[in-house]
Amino acid sequence: MPVTFGGLEAGGTKMVCAVGSGPEDLRDRSVFPTTTPEETIPRLVDYFAGAAERHGGLAALGVASFGPLELRADTSTYGHIAATPKPGWSGSDMLGPFSAALGVPVAFDTDVNGAALGEWRWGAAQGLDNFVYLTVGTGIGGGALIGGRPVHGLVHPEMGHLRVPRHPDDTFPGRCPYHGDCLEGLACGPAIEDRWGRPADELGDLAVAATDMEAHYLAAGIAQLVYSIAPMRVIVGGGVSKLPGLLPRIRRRLTDLLGGYPGIAEHADDAFVVRPALGDDAGILGALALAGTANSA
Amino acid sequence: MPVTFGGLEAGGTKMVCAVGSGPEDLRDRSVFPTTTPEETIPRLVDYFAGAAERHGGLAALGVASFGPLELRADTSTYGHIAATPKPGWSGSDMLGPFSAALGVPVAFDTDVNGAALGEWRWGAAQGLDNFVYLTVGTGIGGGALIGGRPVHGLVHPEMGHLRVPRHPDDTFPGRCPYHGDCLEGLACGPAIEDRWGRPADELGDLAVAATDMEAHYLAAGIAQLVYSIAPMRVIVGGGVSKLPGLLPRIRRRLTDLLGGYPGIAEHADDAFVVRPALGDDAGILGALALAGTANSA
Repeated sequence: MPVTFGGLEAGGTKMVCAVGSGPEDLRDRSVFPTTTPEETIPRLVDYFAGAAERHGGLAALGVASFGPLELRADTSTYGHIAATPKPGWSGSDMLGPFSAALGVPVAFDTDVNGAALGEWRWGAAQGLDNFVYLTVGTGIGGGALIGGRPVHGLVHPEMGHLRVPRHPDDTFPGRCPYHGDCLEGLACGPAIEDRWGRPADELGDLAVAATDMEAHYLAAGIAQLVYSIAPMRVIVGGGVSKLPGLLPRIRRRLTDLLGGYPGIAEHADDAFVVRPALGDDAGILGALALAGTANSA
Repeated sequence: MPVTFGGLEAGGTKMVCAVGSGPEDLRDRSVFPTTTPEETIPRLVDYFAGAAERHGGLAALGVASFGPLELRADTSTYGHIAATPKPGWSGSDMLGPFSAALGVPVAFDTDVNGAALGEWRWGAAQGLDNFVYLTVGTGIGGGALIGGRPVHGLVHPEMGHLRVPRHPDDTFPGRCPYHGDCLEGLACGPAIEDRWGRPADELGDLAVAATDMEAHYLAAGIAQLVYSIAPMRVIVGGGVSKLPGLLPRIRRRLTDLLGGYPGIAEHADDAFVVRPALGDDAGILGALALAGTANSA
Protein backbone atom coordinates (compact mmCIF):
# COMPACT_ATOMS: atom_id res chain seq x y z
CA MET A 1 0.00 0.00 0.00
CA PRO A 2 1.41 3.41 -0.93
CA VAL A 3 2.51 5.81 1.77
CA THR A 4 -0.04 8.56 2.39
CA PHE A 5 1.16 12.16 2.19
CA GLY A 6 -0.56 15.43 2.88
CA GLY A 7 -0.42 18.26 0.35
CA LEU A 8 -1.26 21.93 0.73
CA GLU A 9 -1.41 24.16 -2.34
CA ALA A 10 -1.42 27.55 -0.64
CA GLY A 11 -2.74 30.24 -2.96
CA GLY A 12 -3.56 33.89 -2.53
CA THR A 13 -7.30 33.28 -2.93
CA LYS A 14 -7.75 29.65 -1.87
CA MET A 15 -6.03 26.86 -0.03
CA VAL A 16 -6.32 23.40 -1.60
CA CYS A 17 -5.67 20.46 0.74
CA ALA A 18 -5.57 16.75 -0.04
CA VAL A 19 -4.00 13.50 1.02
CA GLY A 20 -2.77 10.68 -1.16
CA SER A 21 0.27 9.39 -2.96
CA GLY A 22 -0.17 10.51 -6.57
CA PRO A 23 -2.58 11.03 -9.47
CA GLU A 24 -4.22 7.61 -8.96
CA ASP A 25 -4.58 8.17 -5.26
CA LEU A 26 -5.75 11.70 -4.51
CA ARG A 27 -8.21 11.78 -1.64
CA ASP A 28 -10.10 13.97 0.78
CA ARG A 29 -9.64 17.16 -1.22
CA SER A 30 -10.86 20.26 0.63
CA VAL A 31 -10.68 23.90 -0.35
CA PHE A 32 -10.62 26.81 2.11
CA PRO A 33 -10.70 30.51 1.28
CA THR A 34 -7.51 32.44 1.98
CA THR A 35 -8.64 35.06 4.51
CA THR A 36 -6.29 36.19 7.29
CA PRO A 37 -3.39 34.00 8.38
CA GLU A 38 -4.80 34.00 11.94
CA GLU A 39 -8.00 32.41 10.69
CA THR A 40 -6.71 30.38 7.76
CA ILE A 41 -3.63 28.63 9.15
CA PRO A 42 -5.35 27.05 12.18
CA ARG A 43 -8.12 25.86 9.89
CA LEU A 44 -5.54 24.16 7.66
CA VAL A 45 -3.75 22.64 10.64
CA ASP A 46 -7.11 21.25 11.82
CA TYR A 47 -7.77 19.79 8.41
CA PHE A 48 -4.44 17.95 8.28
CA ALA A 49 -4.71 16.79 11.90
CA GLY A 50 -8.13 15.35 11.06
CA ALA A 51 -6.86 13.91 7.78
CA ALA A 52 -4.03 12.16 9.61
CA GLU A 53 -6.63 10.52 11.88
CA ARG A 54 -8.95 9.60 9.01
CA HIS A 55 -6.20 8.09 6.87
CA GLY A 56 -4.10 6.23 9.40
CA GLY A 57 -1.37 8.89 9.69
CA LEU A 58 0.55 11.00 7.17
CA ALA A 59 4.15 10.20 6.30
CA ALA A 60 4.94 13.85 5.51
CA LEU A 61 3.34 17.11 4.43
CA GLY A 62 4.20 19.21 1.38
CA VAL A 63 3.41 22.92 1.50
CA ALA A 64 3.59 24.54 -1.94
CA SER A 65 2.90 28.20 -1.30
CA PHE A 66 2.42 31.55 -2.97
CA GLY A 67 5.41 33.77 -2.25
CA PRO A 68 7.89 35.25 -2.05
CA LEU A 69 9.16 32.74 0.48
CA GLU A 70 12.17 32.35 2.70
CA LEU A 71 13.59 28.99 1.58
CA ARG A 72 17.06 29.19 3.10
CA ALA A 73 16.99 26.55 5.83
CA ASP A 74 19.75 28.32 7.77
CA THR A 75 17.69 31.48 8.39
CA SER A 76 15.48 32.15 11.41
CA THR A 77 12.56 32.89 9.11
CA TYR A 78 12.82 29.68 7.07
CA GLY A 79 9.31 28.65 6.03
CA HIS A 80 7.87 32.14 6.28
CA ILE A 81 6.24 34.24 3.60
CA ALA A 82 8.48 37.24 2.87
CA ALA A 83 7.29 40.77 2.11
CA THR A 84 4.14 40.32 0.02
CA PRO A 85 1.56 42.85 -1.15
CA LYS A 86 -1.14 40.45 0.08
CA PRO A 87 -2.48 42.20 3.23
CA GLY A 88 -1.63 40.48 6.49
CA TRP A 89 0.48 37.65 5.06
CA SER A 90 3.99 39.16 5.15
CA GLY A 91 6.01 37.21 7.68
CA SER A 92 3.45 34.41 8.12
CA ASP A 93 4.98 31.12 9.20
CA MET A 94 3.72 28.52 6.72
CA LEU A 95 5.79 25.66 8.09
CA GLY A 96 6.15 25.84 11.88
CA PRO A 97 2.46 25.42 12.81
CA PHE A 98 2.20 22.30 10.66
CA SER A 99 5.42 20.75 11.93
CA ALA A 100 4.38 21.43 15.52
CA ALA A 101 0.85 20.09 15.21
CA LEU A 102 1.50 17.08 13.00
CA GLY A 103 4.90 15.88 14.13
CA VAL A 104 5.90 14.80 10.62
CA PRO A 105 8.48 16.17 8.16
CA VAL A 106 7.19 19.19 6.23
CA ALA A 107 8.67 20.10 2.84
CA PHE A 108 8.22 23.70 1.81
CA ASP A 109 8.64 25.39 -1.56
CA THR A 110 6.93 27.74 -3.98
CA ASP A 111 3.63 26.72 -5.56
CA VAL A 112 5.30 26.62 -8.97
CA ASN A 113 8.34 24.63 -7.86
CA GLY A 114 5.82 22.19 -6.35
CA ALA A 115 3.85 21.98 -9.59
CA ALA A 116 7.10 21.49 -11.49
CA LEU A 117 7.99 18.61 -9.18
CA GLY A 118 4.57 17.02 -9.77
CA GLU A 119 4.93 17.29 -13.55
CA TRP A 120 8.43 15.84 -13.32
CA ARG A 121 7.26 12.86 -11.27
CA TRP A 122 3.95 12.09 -12.98
CA GLY A 123 3.29 14.51 -15.83
CA ALA A 124 4.72 16.34 -18.82
CA ALA A 125 8.32 16.57 -17.61
CA GLN A 126 9.15 12.97 -16.78
CA GLY A 127 12.80 12.25 -17.45
CA LEU A 128 13.73 15.88 -18.19
CA ASP A 129 16.86 17.20 -16.56
CA ASN A 130 16.01 20.89 -17.06
CA PHE A 131 12.54 22.37 -17.54
CA VAL A 132 10.33 25.25 -16.45
CA TYR A 133 6.76 25.32 -15.15
CA LEU A 134 4.91 28.60 -15.66
CA THR A 135 1.48 29.44 -14.30
CA VAL A 136 -0.56 32.30 -15.72
CA GLY A 137 -3.58 33.35 -13.71
CA THR A 138 -4.17 36.05 -11.09
CA GLY A 139 -0.41 36.41 -11.18
CA ILE A 140 2.38 34.83 -13.18
CA GLY A 141 4.89 32.54 -11.53
CA GLY A 142 7.51 30.12 -12.70
CA GLY A 143 9.55 27.31 -11.22
CA ALA A 144 12.45 25.37 -12.64
CA LEU A 145 13.75 21.90 -11.94
CA ILE A 146 17.37 21.15 -12.81
CA GLY A 147 18.62 17.65 -12.14
CA GLY A 148 15.39 16.90 -10.29
CA ARG A 149 15.95 19.72 -7.79
CA PRO A 150 13.85 22.89 -7.64
CA VAL A 151 16.06 25.90 -8.37
CA HIS A 152 16.71 28.09 -5.32
CA GLY A 153 19.39 30.66 -4.67
CA LEU A 154 19.26 33.84 -2.62
CA VAL A 155 15.52 33.47 -3.07
CA HIS A 156 13.67 31.48 -5.73
CA PRO A 157 12.83 32.32 -9.33
CA GLU A 158 10.15 34.99 -9.76
CA MET A 159 9.64 34.58 -13.47
CA GLY A 160 6.53 36.75 -13.53
CA HIS A 161 8.79 39.73 -12.95
CA LEU A 162 10.96 39.25 -16.03
CA ARG A 163 10.95 42.33 -18.25
CA VAL A 164 9.66 41.71 -21.75
CA PRO A 165 9.63 43.81 -24.92
CA ARG A 166 6.26 45.48 -25.43
CA HIS A 167 3.83 44.43 -28.11
CA PRO A 168 3.86 47.29 -30.65
CA ASP A 169 0.07 47.81 -30.35
CA ASP A 170 -0.03 47.82 -26.56
CA THR A 171 -0.53 51.07 -24.66
CA PHE A 172 -1.59 49.47 -21.37
CA PRO A 173 0.86 50.71 -18.70
CA GLY A 174 0.99 47.42 -16.79
CA ARG A 175 -0.20 46.74 -13.26
CA CYS A 176 2.73 45.30 -11.32
CA PRO A 177 3.07 47.35 -8.12
CA TYR A 178 6.87 46.98 -8.32
CA HIS A 179 7.69 47.21 -12.02
CA GLY A 180 4.62 48.33 -13.91
CA ASP A 181 5.18 46.58 -17.20
CA CYS A 182 6.98 43.36 -16.31
CA LEU A 183 5.57 40.07 -17.65
CA GLU A 184 3.06 39.73 -14.81
CA GLY A 185 2.13 43.41 -15.04
CA LEU A 186 1.28 43.03 -18.73
CA ALA A 187 0.03 39.47 -19.06
CA CYS A 188 -1.62 38.18 -15.87
CA GLY A 189 -5.39 37.63 -15.90
CA PRO A 190 -6.23 40.98 -14.24
CA ALA A 191 -3.98 42.79 -16.77
CA ILE A 192 -6.01 41.26 -19.60
CA GLU A 193 -9.21 42.44 -17.93
CA ASP A 194 -7.82 45.93 -17.29
CA ARG A 195 -6.54 46.31 -20.85
CA TRP A 196 -9.55 44.97 -22.75
CA GLY A 197 -12.30 45.79 -20.28
CA ARG A 198 -13.42 42.18 -20.11
CA PRO A 199 -12.19 39.13 -18.22
CA ALA A 200 -10.06 36.60 -20.12
CA ASP A 201 -12.91 34.12 -20.41
CA GLU A 202 -15.41 36.66 -21.82
CA LEU A 203 -13.35 38.33 -24.55
CA GLY A 204 -15.87 37.76 -27.38
CA ASP A 205 -14.88 39.69 -30.51
CA LEU A 206 -11.69 40.87 -28.80
CA ALA A 207 -10.46 37.31 -28.39
CA VAL A 208 -8.15 37.17 -31.40
CA ALA A 209 -6.35 40.44 -30.67
CA ALA A 210 -6.14 39.72 -26.95
CA THR A 211 -4.87 36.17 -27.46
CA ASP A 212 -2.26 37.37 -29.95
CA MET A 213 -1.01 39.97 -27.50
CA GLU A 214 -1.00 37.47 -24.62
CA ALA A 215 0.95 35.02 -26.80
CA HIS A 216 3.49 37.73 -27.57
CA TYR A 217 4.14 38.41 -23.90
CA LEU A 218 4.30 34.78 -22.82
CA ALA A 219 6.59 33.95 -25.76
CA ALA A 220 8.80 36.91 -24.82
CA GLY A 221 8.99 35.60 -21.25
CA ILE A 222 9.81 32.11 -22.51
CA ALA A 223 12.54 33.55 -24.78
CA GLN A 224 14.16 35.06 -21.67
CA LEU A 225 14.08 31.61 -20.07
CA VAL A 226 15.58 30.00 -23.19
CA TYR A 227 18.53 32.36 -22.91
CA SER A 228 18.96 32.16 -19.14
CA ILE A 229 18.13 28.53 -18.25
CA ALA A 230 18.03 26.70 -21.61
CA PRO A 231 15.10 24.47 -20.57
CA MET A 232 14.22 21.29 -22.46
CA ARG A 233 10.53 22.08 -22.12
CA VAL A 234 8.26 24.84 -20.82
CA ILE A 235 4.94 23.81 -19.26
CA VAL A 236 2.31 26.57 -19.21
CA GLY A 237 -0.55 26.14 -16.74
CA GLY A 238 -3.02 28.36 -14.90
CA GLY A 239 -6.42 29.69 -15.90
CA VAL A 240 -5.19 32.08 -18.62
CA SER A 241 -3.30 29.26 -20.34
CA LYS A 242 -6.70 27.86 -21.39
CA LEU A 243 -7.41 30.75 -23.80
CA PRO A 244 -8.35 28.99 -27.06
CA GLY A 245 -5.49 28.99 -29.53
CA LEU A 246 -2.99 30.46 -27.09
CA LEU A 247 -0.35 27.74 -27.16
CA PRO A 248 0.08 27.52 -30.96
CA ARG A 249 0.38 31.31 -31.04
CA ILE A 250 3.00 31.24 -28.28
CA ARG A 251 5.01 28.69 -30.28
CA ARG A 252 4.93 30.79 -33.46
CA ARG A 253 5.75 34.00 -31.66
CA LEU A 254 8.61 32.34 -29.79
CA THR A 255 10.18 31.34 -33.11
CA ASP A 256 9.96 34.97 -34.25
CA LEU A 257 11.46 36.32 -31.05
CA LEU A 258 14.36 33.86 -30.95
CA GLY A 259 15.23 35.12 -34.43
CA GLY A 260 17.06 31.95 -35.43
CA TYR A 261 19.31 31.89 -32.38
CA PRO A 262 20.54 29.48 -31.14
CA GLY A 263 18.98 27.97 -34.25
CA ILE A 264 17.86 24.54 -33.08
CA ALA A 265 14.68 22.95 -34.35
CA GLU A 266 13.45 21.81 -30.94
CA HIS A 267 12.42 25.32 -29.87
CA ALA A 268 9.80 25.33 -32.65
CA ASP A 269 8.50 21.86 -31.85
CA ASP A 270 5.02 21.36 -30.36
CA ALA A 271 6.68 19.47 -27.53
CA PHE A 272 8.65 22.51 -26.36
CA VAL A 273 5.75 24.60 -25.00
CA VAL A 274 3.02 22.36 -23.57
CA ARG A 275 0.11 22.35 -21.11
CA PRO A 276 0.48 20.52 -17.78
CA ALA A 277 -0.25 16.80 -18.14
CA LEU A 278 -1.77 16.90 -14.65
CA GLY A 279 -4.17 19.66 -15.72
CA ASP A 280 -5.83 21.52 -12.88
CA ASP A 281 -4.40 19.01 -10.41
CA ALA A 282 -0.81 20.09 -11.15
CA GLY A 283 -0.75 22.30 -8.06
CA ILE A 284 -2.12 19.91 -5.46
CA LEU A 285 -0.24 16.93 -6.92
CA GLY A 286 2.87 19.08 -6.81
CA ALA A 287 2.31 19.56 -3.08
CA LEU A 288 2.10 15.77 -2.68
CA ALA A 289 5.26 15.30 -4.77
CA LEU A 290 6.93 17.87 -2.53
CA ALA A 291 5.85 15.87 0.54
CA GLY A 292 7.63 12.91 -1.01
CA THR A 293 10.90 14.80 -0.99
CA ALA A 294 10.52 15.57 2.73
CA ASN A 295 10.02 11.94 3.47
CA SER A 296 13.10 10.82 1.63
CA ALA A 297 15.30 13.65 2.96
CA MET B 1 52.32 15.95 -6.76
CA PRO B 2 49.16 17.32 -8.35
CA VAL B 3 47.73 15.76 -11.47
CA THR B 4 48.49 17.78 -14.60
CA PHE B 5 45.57 18.79 -16.81
CA GLY B 6 45.40 20.55 -20.13
CA GLY B 7 43.11 23.52 -20.61
CA LEU B 8 41.95 25.22 -23.80
CA GLU B 9 40.05 28.51 -23.62
CA ALA B 10 38.73 28.67 -27.17
CA GLY B 11 37.72 32.20 -28.10
CA GLY B 12 36.59 33.85 -31.29
CA THR B 13 39.80 35.84 -31.63
CA LYS B 14 42.37 33.79 -29.73
CA MET B 15 42.98 30.36 -28.31
CA VAL B 16 44.60 30.22 -24.87
CA CYS B 17 46.26 26.94 -23.95
CA ALA B 18 47.94 25.90 -20.71
CA VAL B 19 48.70 22.94 -18.52
CA GLY B 20 48.58 22.73 -14.74
CA SER B 21 46.33 21.92 -11.85
CA GLY B 22 45.11 25.29 -10.58
CA PRO B 23 45.98 28.93 -9.85
CA GLU B 24 49.22 27.98 -8.08
CA ASP B 25 50.23 25.66 -10.88
CA LEU B 26 49.53 27.20 -14.27
CA ARG B 27 52.26 26.41 -16.77
CA ASP B 28 53.27 26.51 -20.41
CA ARG B 29 50.68 29.10 -21.42
CA SER B 30 50.49 29.65 -25.17
CA VAL B 31 48.18 31.81 -27.21
CA PHE B 32 47.27 31.17 -30.85
CA PRO B 33 45.16 33.37 -33.10
CA THR B 34 41.76 31.97 -34.09
CA THR B 35 41.99 31.78 -37.88
CA THR B 36 40.26 28.96 -39.77
CA PRO B 37 39.39 25.70 -38.01
CA GLU B 38 41.50 23.81 -40.58
CA GLU B 39 44.55 25.75 -39.52
CA THR B 40 43.79 26.40 -35.86
CA ILE B 41 42.63 23.02 -34.57
CA PRO B 42 45.69 21.02 -35.75
CA ARG B 43 47.92 23.70 -34.22
CA LEU B 44 46.12 23.28 -30.88
CA VAL B 45 46.31 19.49 -31.09
CA ASP B 46 50.06 19.80 -31.72
CA TYR B 47 50.43 22.07 -28.72
CA PHE B 48 48.70 19.65 -26.36
CA ALA B 49 50.53 16.62 -27.78
CA GLY B 50 53.78 18.45 -27.15
CA ALA B 51 52.65 19.61 -23.74
CA ALA B 52 51.80 16.03 -22.78
CA GLU B 53 55.36 15.05 -23.66
CA ARG B 54 56.92 18.02 -21.88
CA HIS B 55 54.92 17.52 -18.67
CA GLY B 56 54.90 13.76 -18.28
CA GLY B 57 51.40 13.22 -19.66
CA LEU B 58 48.06 14.93 -19.18
CA ALA B 59 45.34 13.36 -17.04
CA ALA B 60 42.56 15.04 -19.04
CA LEU B 61 41.82 18.03 -21.24
CA GLY B 62 39.18 20.69 -20.68
CA VAL B 63 37.89 22.59 -23.71
CA ALA B 64 35.95 25.72 -22.77
CA SER B 65 34.76 27.15 -26.05
CA PHE B 66 32.92 30.02 -27.64
CA GLY B 67 29.56 28.82 -28.91
CA PRO B 68 26.84 27.99 -29.43
CA LEU B 69 27.83 24.40 -28.79
CA GLU B 70 26.21 21.00 -29.00
CA LEU B 71 26.54 19.70 -25.44
CA ARG B 72 24.08 16.81 -25.56
CA ALA B 73 26.27 13.72 -25.31
CA ASP B 74 23.65 11.57 -27.05
CA THR B 75 23.81 13.52 -30.33
CA SER B 76 26.06 12.73 -33.28
CA THR B 77 27.36 16.29 -33.23
CA TYR B 78 28.32 16.33 -29.53
CA GLY B 79 31.37 18.50 -29.11
CA HIS B 80 30.76 20.54 -32.24
CA ILE B 81 30.22 24.26 -32.60
CA ALA B 82 26.63 24.87 -33.76
CA ALA B 83 25.52 27.54 -36.22
CA THR B 84 27.71 30.57 -35.50
CA PRO B 85 28.15 33.83 -37.37
CA LYS B 86 31.90 33.32 -37.10
CA PRO B 87 32.92 32.46 -40.67
CA GLY B 88 34.01 28.88 -41.16
CA TRP B 89 33.46 27.65 -37.62
CA SER B 90 29.86 26.35 -37.82
CA GLY B 91 29.97 22.59 -37.37
CA SER B 92 33.62 22.45 -36.27
CA ASP B 93 34.43 19.48 -34.07
CA MET B 94 36.12 20.89 -30.97
CA LEU B 95 36.35 17.60 -29.14
CA GLY B 96 37.01 14.68 -31.48
CA PRO B 97 40.45 15.76 -32.76
CA PHE B 98 41.72 16.19 -29.19
CA SER B 99 40.31 12.89 -27.95
CA ALA B 100 41.76 11.07 -30.94
CA ALA B 101 45.21 12.61 -30.72
CA LEU B 102 45.68 12.66 -26.96
CA GLY B 103 43.87 9.52 -25.83
CA VAL B 104 42.71 11.14 -22.61
CA PRO B 105 39.23 12.17 -21.40
CA VAL B 106 38.15 15.54 -22.81
CA ALA B 107 35.53 17.64 -21.00
CA PHE B 108 33.70 20.15 -23.15
CA ASP B 109 31.55 23.13 -22.22
CA THR B 110 31.02 26.79 -22.96
CA ASP B 111 33.77 29.27 -22.15
CA VAL B 112 31.54 30.90 -19.51
CA ASN B 113 30.47 27.64 -17.89
CA GLY B 114 34.18 26.83 -17.71
CA ALA B 115 34.99 30.18 -16.12
CA ALA B 116 32.12 29.66 -13.67
CA LEU B 117 33.56 26.29 -12.72
CA GLY B 118 36.98 27.87 -12.14
CA GLU B 119 35.53 30.61 -9.92
CA TRP B 120 33.54 27.97 -8.01
CA ARG B 121 36.60 25.84 -7.39
CA TRP B 122 39.21 28.53 -6.70
CA GLY B 123 37.66 32.00 -6.91
CA ALA B 124 34.72 34.21 -6.03
CA ALA B 125 32.04 31.53 -5.95
CA GLN B 126 33.52 28.97 -3.58
CA GLY B 127 30.78 27.23 -1.62
CA LEU B 128 27.93 28.81 -3.59
CA ASP B 129 25.14 26.49 -4.71
CA ASN B 130 23.77 28.85 -7.38
CA PHE B 131 25.61 31.65 -9.13
CA VAL B 132 26.18 33.21 -12.53
CA TYR B 133 29.37 34.16 -14.37
CA LEU B 134 28.99 36.88 -17.01
CA THR B 135 31.66 38.03 -19.40
CA VAL B 136 31.42 41.34 -21.22
CA GLY B 137 33.85 41.86 -24.06
CA THR B 138 33.62 41.38 -27.82
CA GLY B 139 30.37 39.60 -27.00
CA ILE B 140 28.41 38.96 -23.83
CA GLY B 141 28.05 35.46 -22.46
CA GLY B 142 26.90 33.94 -19.22
CA GLY B 143 27.14 30.60 -17.49
CA ALA B 144 25.45 29.32 -14.36
CA LEU B 145 26.43 26.66 -11.87
CA ILE B 146 23.70 25.09 -9.79
CA GLY B 147 24.70 22.46 -7.28
CA GLY B 148 28.20 22.49 -8.72
CA ARG B 149 26.96 21.52 -12.20
CA PRO B 150 27.01 23.83 -15.22
CA VAL B 151 23.46 24.47 -16.38
CA HIS B 152 22.62 22.78 -19.68
CA GLY B 153 19.29 21.95 -21.26
CA LEU B 154 18.29 21.83 -24.91
CA VAL B 155 21.36 23.97 -25.37
CA HIS B 156 23.15 26.09 -22.79
CA PRO B 157 22.41 29.55 -21.43
CA GLU B 158 23.01 32.39 -23.91
CA MET B 159 22.64 35.25 -21.46
CA GLY B 160 23.97 37.82 -23.89
CA HIS B 161 20.74 37.44 -25.84
CA LEU B 162 18.40 38.39 -22.99
CA ARG B 163 16.20 41.32 -23.92
CA VAL B 164 16.59 44.33 -21.67
CA PRO B 165 14.64 47.58 -21.29
CA ARG B 166 16.32 50.41 -23.14
CA HIS B 167 18.09 53.26 -21.41
CA PRO B 168 15.86 56.30 -21.96
CA ASP B 169 18.71 58.30 -23.57
CA ASP B 170 19.83 55.55 -25.93
CA THR B 171 19.04 55.75 -29.62
CA PHE B 172 21.65 53.21 -30.75
CA PRO B 173 19.77 50.46 -32.62
CA GLY B 174 21.89 47.61 -31.33
CA ARG B 175 24.19 45.35 -33.31
CA CYS B 176 23.13 41.76 -32.63
CA PRO B 177 22.66 40.07 -36.02
CA TYR B 178 19.76 38.04 -34.58
CA HIS B 179 17.95 40.45 -32.26
CA GLY B 180 19.31 43.94 -32.78
CA ASP B 181 18.88 45.36 -29.30
CA CYS B 182 19.37 42.40 -26.97
CA LEU B 183 21.87 42.76 -24.10
CA GLU B 184 24.84 41.86 -26.28
CA GLY B 185 23.58 44.04 -29.12
CA LEU B 186 23.47 47.06 -26.81
CA ALA B 187 26.25 46.49 -24.31
CA CYS B 188 29.13 44.45 -25.77
CA GLY B 189 32.43 46.24 -26.37
CA PRO B 190 31.82 46.84 -30.10
CA ALA B 191 28.36 48.28 -29.28
CA ILE B 192 30.03 50.81 -26.98
CA GLU B 193 32.43 51.75 -29.76
CA ASP B 194 29.64 52.00 -32.35
CA ARG B 195 27.45 54.13 -30.09
CA TRP B 196 30.05 56.55 -28.76
CA GLY B 197 32.49 56.51 -31.65
CA ARG B 198 35.35 55.47 -29.38
CA PRO B 199 36.49 52.14 -27.93
CA ALA B 200 35.58 51.38 -24.32
CA ASP B 201 39.11 52.06 -23.08
CA GLU B 202 39.38 55.48 -24.79
CA LEU B 203 36.10 57.11 -23.78
CA GLY B 204 37.65 60.28 -22.34
CA ASP B 205 34.98 62.89 -21.55
CA LEU B 206 32.27 60.45 -22.61
CA ALA B 207 33.26 58.01 -19.88
CA VAL B 208 30.63 58.98 -17.30
CA ALA B 209 27.68 58.85 -19.68
CA ALA B 210 28.92 55.68 -21.36
CA THR B 211 29.61 53.92 -18.07
CA ASP B 212 26.19 54.89 -16.71
CA MET B 213 24.51 53.48 -19.80
CA GLU B 214 26.60 50.31 -19.70
CA ALA B 215 25.73 49.88 -16.02
CA HIS B 216 22.05 50.25 -16.86
CA TYR B 217 22.18 47.45 -19.43
CA LEU B 218 24.25 45.07 -17.36
CA ALA B 219 22.04 45.69 -14.31
CA ALA B 220 18.97 45.06 -16.47
CA GLY B 221 20.47 41.76 -17.63
CA ILE B 222 21.32 40.82 -14.04
CA ALA B 223 17.74 41.65 -12.97
CA GLN B 224 16.48 39.13 -15.55
CA LEU B 225 18.82 36.56 -13.99
CA VAL B 226 17.61 37.40 -10.47
CA TYR B 227 14.06 36.62 -11.58
CA SER B 228 14.87 33.51 -13.62
CA ILE B 229 17.68 31.79 -11.71
CA ALA B 230 17.80 33.56 -8.32
CA PRO B 231 21.62 33.42 -8.13
CA MET B 232 23.48 33.95 -4.85
CA ARG B 233 26.15 36.00 -6.66
CA VAL B 234 26.86 37.36 -10.13
CA ILE B 235 30.49 37.53 -11.24
CA VAL B 236 31.17 40.03 -14.04
CA GLY B 237 34.37 39.52 -16.02
CA GLY B 238 35.68 40.40 -19.46
CA GLY B 239 37.44 43.47 -20.79
CA VAL B 240 34.46 45.83 -20.55
CA SER B 241 33.96 44.95 -16.87
CA LYS B 242 37.13 46.92 -16.14
CA LEU B 243 35.52 50.28 -17.00
CA PRO B 244 36.31 52.46 -13.96
CA GLY B 245 33.32 52.79 -11.65
CA LEU B 246 31.21 50.27 -13.54
CA LEU B 247 30.50 47.80 -10.76
CA PRO B 248 29.23 50.29 -8.15
CA ARG B 249 26.97 51.79 -10.83
CA ILE B 250 25.65 48.33 -11.74
CA ARG B 251 24.82 47.68 -8.08
CA ARG B 252 22.91 50.96 -7.71
CA ARG B 253 21.04 50.54 -10.96
CA LEU B 254 20.15 46.94 -10.08
CA THR B 255 18.50 48.16 -6.89
CA ASP B 256 16.44 50.64 -8.93
CA LEU B 257 15.41 48.03 -11.48
CA LEU B 258 14.41 45.40 -8.92
CA GLY B 259 12.08 48.05 -7.49
CA GLY B 260 12.02 46.51 -4.03
CA TYR B 261 11.06 43.04 -5.23
CA PRO B 262 11.70 40.45 -3.85
CA GLY B 263 12.88 42.95 -1.26
CA ILE B 264 15.91 41.26 0.26
CA ALA B 265 18.96 43.22 1.34
CA GLU B 266 21.49 40.86 -0.25
CA HIS B 267 20.78 42.08 -3.79
CA ALA B 268 22.11 45.52 -2.82
CA ASP B 269 25.20 44.16 -1.09
CA ASP B 270 28.66 44.70 -2.58
CA ALA B 271 29.12 40.92 -2.47
CA PHE B 272 26.25 40.29 -4.91
CA VAL B 273 27.85 41.69 -8.08
CA VAL B 274 31.62 41.13 -8.06
CA ARG B 275 34.64 40.84 -10.36
CA PRO B 276 36.24 37.42 -10.95
CA ALA B 277 38.68 36.52 -8.17
CA LEU B 278 40.81 34.80 -10.80
CA GLY B 279 40.97 37.99 -12.86
CA ASP B 280 42.12 37.55 -16.43
CA ASP B 281 42.96 33.92 -15.69
CA ALA B 282 39.30 33.01 -15.05
CA GLY B 283 38.93 31.61 -18.56
CA ILE B 284 42.01 29.42 -18.76
CA LEU B 285 41.68 28.26 -15.15
CA GLY B 286 38.08 27.44 -15.94
CA ALA B 287 39.29 25.17 -18.74
CA LEU B 288 41.57 23.41 -16.24
CA ALA B 289 38.71 23.09 -13.75
CA LEU B 290 36.62 21.62 -16.54
CA ALA B 291 39.38 19.09 -17.25
CA GLY B 292 39.10 18.06 -13.61
CA THR B 293 35.46 17.11 -14.12
CA ALA B 294 36.39 14.89 -17.07
CA ASN B 295 38.91 13.09 -14.97
CA SER B 296 36.50 12.34 -12.17
CA ALA B 297 33.61 11.38 -14.49
